[in-house]
Amino acid sequence: MDDPEGITDLTGELKQLVAESAVAEGTLHVYCGHTTCGLIINERDTGLDTDMREVLERIAPHSDNHHYSHDKDRTPAERLLHAERDNGHSHARAMLATHPELHIPITAGNLYLGQWQAIMLAEYDGPRTRELLVRLHTA
Amino acid sequence: MDDPEGITDLTGELKQLVAESAVAEGTLHVYCGHTTCGLIINERDTGLDTDMREVLERIAPHSDNHHYSHDKDRTPAERLLHAERDNGHSHARAMLATHPELHIPITAGNLYLGQWQAIMLAEYDGPRTRELLVRLHTA
Amino acid sequence: MDDPEGITDLTGELKQLVAESAVAEGTLHVYCGHTTCGLIINERDTGLDTDMREVLERIAPHSDNHHYSHDKDRTPAERLLHAERDNGHSHARAMLATHPELHIPITAGNLYLGQWQAIMLAEYDGPRTRELLVRLHTA
Repeated sequence: MDDPEGITDLTGELKQLVAESAVAEGTLHVYCGHTTCGLIINERDTGLDTDMREVLERIAPHSDNHHYSHDKDRTPAERLLHAERDNGHSHARAMLATHPELHIPITAGNLYLGQWQAIMLAEYDGPRTRELLVRLHTA
Repeated sequence: MDDPEGITDLTGELKQLVAESAVAEGTLHVYCGHTTCGLIINERDTGLDTDMREVLERIAPHSDNHHYSHDKDRTPAERLLHAERDNGHSHARAMLATHPELHIPITAGNLYLGQWQAIMLAEYDGPRTRELLVRLHTA
Repeated sequence: MDDPEGITDLTGELKQLVAESAVAEGTLHVYCGHTTCGLIINERDTGLDTDMREVLERIAPHSDNHHYSHDKDRTPAERLLHAERDNGHSHARAMLATHPELHIPITAGNLYLGQWQAIMLAEYDGPRTRELLVRLHTA
């Protein structure tokens, strides 16, 4: 429990937000103001977590021994602030595997998503409370 | 033949679309509603396919033995639907190496692309018919 | 010196540009018209350069022996034009680790950036003079 990594599906909430708005033709902008999580669009199946963990472990492996400069170079005060937890890999994973912002078209009052597409938040340094800025633009 | 991976250059068609429009200052939005292909902007040379294959094989290797959870956890009905072909690596590659959507500026009635830039669709689970939503926004 | 890789923080200049504009609610669009550098949003700490180099060396290693097709398949004329320097890895790194364009929200006349977020240009084939197209859109 309290897994630091995980994927949250935002599709339902975002679809509802668009449906309840008056925007018929436009764009939904989702902005993630964080540096160790980010947005992805892909198929939301049960295997996605497992597969991404395996792939990302190959690219930016976990490290609990201050392996990354991000963690090694921290001052004692910074370590205290961050509760001593290393998260150099979280920064690298967010940068390589997610988007800080996404625009999804709105057509005929609905989010234009492909058959298999879900909009998700991929967390690499949680669990934390995260905040997204969401805006609707008319075309 | 029938290579499941490949890169399609969209630059010419998109440039023409902009040129034929009345938009002088604005933005071209290209949205890819799929989960195993995506958009890239880079130099379109003969080596791009080869180089990306090598790099992606290192990150998210092919697997024909249901290696990825995405493939392993499929029900027999799902396997039938997808013609038994594994594509866990295709999802990972699309997520890591492509963008689901891109905005390219339009200035003085033309697409603002750098000297070496081409807009391409990178396919990781083809050959398939793919559909893109393209929109022109005035600035 | 003359390191071909490096990260330039653009946050201060972009914040100032927004502050000096009349845009209260809108979006800042930054477009990078190059193929061997690109944009990232993350935390700007002293370890970022080091960590990204390590991660990217794993994914798309340097090569000075025309390892990548991009470099191997060049004509002598092209080699001369590019001063003989291999940059196949630079193209792969820009594609995998950066964004060609980013939209950052403007709220109450300021750039909406998270507490730890900086907007940076990640260079993989420098040092070179680079040009970005920056536009402010009102919401």
